[in-house]
Amino acid sequence: MLSSNQRKFILQLNKKKYRLANKLFVAEGKKVVNELINSDWRFKNIFSTEKNFHLDSKLLTLEEMKKISNFKTPSHVLGIFILPDSQQIISEDITIGVDGISDPGNLGTIIRLCDWFGLSELICSKNTVDCFNSKVIQASMGSIARINCHYVDDLGGALSAMEKPIYGATLKGESIYSSILPNRASYVFGSESHGISKLLLSQLEGELSIPMFREGDNKAESLNVANASAIFLSELFRDLKEND
Amino acid sequence: MLSSNQRKFILQLNKKKYRLANKLFVAEGKKVVNELINSDWRFKNIFSTEKNFHLDSKLLTLEEMKKISNFKTPSHVLGIFILPDSQQIISEDITIGVDGISDPGNLGTIIRLCDWFGLSELICSKNTVDCFNSKVIQASMGSIARINCHYVDDLGGALSAMEKPIYGATLKGESIYSSILPNRASYVFGSESHGISKLLLSQLEGELSIPMFREGDNKAESLNVANASAIFLSELFRDLKEND
Repeated sequence: MLSSNQRKFILQLNKKKYRLANKLFVAEGKKVVNELINSDWRFKNIFSTEKNFHLDSKLLTLEEMKKISNFKTPSHVLGIFILPDSQQIISEDITIGVDGISDPGNLGTIIRLCDWFGLSELICSKNTVDCFNSKVIQASMGSIARINCHYVDDLGGALSAMEKPIYGATLKGESIYSSILPNRASYVFGSESHGISKLLLSQLEGELSIPMFREGDNKAESLNVANASAIFLSELFRDLKEND
Repeated sequence: MLSSNQRKFILQLNKKKYRLANKLFVAEGKKVVNELINSDWRFKNIFSTEKNFHLDSKLLTLEEMKKISNFKTPSHVLGIFILPDSQQIISEDITIGVDGISDPGNLGTIIRLCDWFGLSELICSKNTVDCFNSKVIQASMGSIARINCHYVDDLGGALSAMEKPIYGATLKGESIYSSILPNRASYVFGSESHGISKLLLSQLEGELSIPMFREGDNKAESLNVANASAIFLSELFRDLKEND
């Protein structure tokens, strides 16, 4: 049984200010919660509709779970975790930056992509959706525990401080297939609706694009930003595996 | 003003059986509805919270729109379109097949990807989410009007009839970066939770994978299927643009 106070407290964690004030965040889904339990992160509570999900898990009815879940179809497991301490930016050879991504699913899948391609950090502009939003956590499928997301006031400044060239993904840049992509550089993806901010555009070494393959007026105008990131990351890292 | 009967009718179109019975489907969002209006498809009604969205659009209040929208945050435009007639499979050089994709966002972004890379059809197993689901339409961002989605009872049979080899995206196949990817072949992506069905696996010419870039046990187990499709399509078509 959950008291109404507990319920209210958990629901408040949907908001960033309560997450920061309480240094807690919520993760939902069996796979994701399991991954976070097995990471270096610590949990405060684990709730499950299944008996014996975890030694410390508390049994809830599906009805109770529905009341605290952030999803239309509630998962069987919900965990409350302690927000990890913020880390220093390390600046790997390849750095990915995101400038104002607002869709939690897009940010979560970009985190999952960074993990797949072996990166360990992602630099986010301040107006990017919070990575501890439960929908981001869910879409990251646990990769959030391996990717340090750094939120910075000035994305251009933070990337410039790394002393590497900064390239931006836009719709009118050089083709990624015919350009040489430096393997010590930052690559930035802009927001779903407005792309990369004007100020940051002026700080780029160059703009890069995935070329269109369809001729004529009647065609897709753009790709989803997570899919575009997938293709960029694949192009950046494929040479490492081409002769395997 | 919408009558309660009209409201009920529109909401029923969320279900595939009502879409088929009425030969109608719903699309939401300004950009998507505009793309569909400008395609060969015909509309029955256009509703908008904005005056003069379209000559034939009917003005609704935001409250009324909320009652017929399929989204938490309703869009300002909702259109009811006539289901297009089903087309013959044409079998292009490259064919993409999906086997049981259940997430509407994933199917919609795969449709958008096929459009970007210049394909004109997608072959879907019968248990794949319906492409006229409004969330698929939304995620396709209008590309649905340019990609014929064919639903087939027997995906392996339909692809075999094209007399091209069939390759499947799995987690333990040959690396796509070091394999020669035939440019006359079918490539199949499986469901988010179960991958490619057993029967279809036995009909494959080969399995292909995006290799992992992180060593050790602690890493992402898989990529989102739409992101994996993005990387496969990029690998399949990049040679066309490499010397541009």
